[in-house]
Amino acid sequence: MLYDLIIIGGGPAGITAGIYSARKKLNTLVIAKDFIGQIGKAWGVENYPGFEEISGFDLIQKFKNHLKKFEIEISEGEEAREIKKNGNVFEIITKQNKEYSAKAVIIASGRDPRPLEAKGEKEFLGKGISYCVTCDGPIFAGKTVAVIGGGNAGFETAFELLLHCPKIYILEAGPKPKADEINLEKAEKSGKIEIITNASVVEIKGRALVDSIIWQNKITQELNTLKVEGIFIEIGSLPATSFVKDLVDFDEHKQIKVNPETGETKTSGIFAAGDVTDIKYKQVIIACGEGAKAALSAYEYLQEE
Amino acid sequence: MLYDLIIIGGGPAGITAGIYSARKKLNTLVIAKDFIGQIGKAWGVENYPGFEEISGFDLIQKFKNHLKKFEIEISEGEEAREIKKNGNVFEIITKQNKEYSAKAVIIASGRDPRPLEAKGEKEFLGKGISYCVTCDGPIFAGKTVAVIGGGNAGFETAFELLLHCPKIYILEAGPKPKADEINLEKAEKSGKIEIITNASVVEIKGRALVDSIIWQNKITQELNTLKVEGIFIEIGSLPATSFVKDLVDFDEHKQIKVNPETGETKTSGIFAAGDVTDIKYKQVIIACGEGAKAALSAYEYLQEE
Repeated sequence: MLYDLIIIGGGPAGITAGIYSARKKLNTLVIAKDFIGQIGKAWGVENYPGFEEISGFDLIQKFKNHLKKFEIEISEGEEAREIKKNGNVFEIITKQNKEYSAKAVIIASGRDPRPLEAKGEKEFLGKGISYCVTCDGPIFAGKTVAVIGGGNAGFETAFELLLHCPKIYILEAGPKPKADEINLEKAEKSGKIEIITNASVVEIKGRALVDSIIWQNKITQELNTLKVEGIFIEIGSLPATSFVKDLVDFDEHKQIKVNPETGETKTSGIFAAGDVTDIKYKQVIIACGEGAKAALSAYEYLQEE
Repeated sequence: MLYDLIIIGGGPAGITAGIYSARKKLNTLVIAKDFIGQIGKAWGVENYPGFEEISGFDLIQKFKNHLKKFEIEISEGEEAREIKKNGNVFEIITKQNKEYSAKAVIIASGRDPRPLEAKGEKEFLGKGISYCVTCDGPIFAGKTVAVIGGGNAGFETAFELLLHCPKIYILEAGPKPKADEINLEKAEKSGKIEIITNASVVEIKGRALVDSIIWQNKITQELNTLKVEGIFIEIGSLPATSFVKDLVDFDEHKQIKVNPETGETKTSGIFAAGDVTDIKYKQVIIACGEGAKAALSAYEYLQEE
């Protein structure tokens, strides 16, 4: 079966691309590892217009239901391993060893969390270290925890932890957290969140489970020990592009270079959208917009064929 | 009072920019003729992720409520007449003869309906001719009507008219309507919508009120009379940019040229977003994304100042 379009990814960009291609009656397959994206891990979303306050999980659930309303084929739980180009046809081989063909492809595979690369990180993963507060927050009820990273993601992680934990540290590597003012104020008002700046994590220590972080003050060079039983790493993410080789160009962050108006990549017939691309701002509403653009461009490409 | 940011426009782009700038705690004023945009006139919106089916009016109402949740100043019912640059400050004079100053401006003023420029159009405006089915549809209950324009907007107008009218013609100038397949099928299924292609409207006729359209078949050159009592003109729109002079560059459609990644215009400190810009695809979800980008860019600009 030769599809018109295969969309790789089940985050906001991939789902929106799916909605648009279904409305254009393209014979479409969506291959999605899961329907989560970056947004599905967000505790509270207050900047997606139309929903004043919603959890990321509920928002992506609404997106997914919206997509499923249309006649569109979905393979959930499947992950791309390789894309090949044969003439004008693209072949996608998945980690599940299936093969699919399509006339056009939209890559909306999103991002994976960036590791801290500190000593002890691999050792204590799942033993006190987590990359997903929505998944693991409740495990740390009553405990003192730390969030590594002072961007919006770090603060939102801390807010979610307020439900469970009496004390939360946020360790920020820079001189000032990069989070929105509104989040800084909210953290201060909580009375439970303490922000440590210029903090570089040296090692995560413990026995069976995490019990402390060794961090260095980047100004004074002083080493400090912070007693915590849980650590959430929120220092950004890396684009999930291992399955794409030289069919696209990458920027210095391994993000796929796209034409920001159309989602086109260097290979005609391959489009990309959302947080996997070099689009400057990573936001759910922006990823949705870029997904719509990629689908409309793919539709035009297929008409011209 | 010198604002950090003035946003001109109350459609999806302007509202999203407002939400983002409020979250960045910018001292912001939104000047909005109304809170409608192109989307507010849409009968049914099925491609804004998260809302499987919603009227454009309800959607924009949700957007507006979302914006108002934040601490942000709004001047509704006011319209920009001129923007001037004095050093690093922008001055906005409105048609209501007020003057406001800001360090940065986002133009999200959207579009006005494009007139048909046929004989009789001005004469019968409000006497059988309308540019807004949501506003005027019910007036034509029980009557035969025509929609001029076979794009998605024309078809959605026709669908809304199905509620009221026994017979609806869609006149399309090209050989095939440009609307999505899904809309073409829906029209056919209705049994009440008749599509006339290659139709160029020559004149709108009537006495006190519209009673017919004279149209020419572009292939055969033959002139025809169509008896209708209502006419909805849906042949696109023009960017609402009369208040901006040489502070921005325009494309050949009088749309404001922007950097599609940031919303920057040629004047630093002036950003633009949404359907007023030269961004290729005009869609509510895309306009929202571009509004977010413009606000984030304006925030960065203000930090650097």
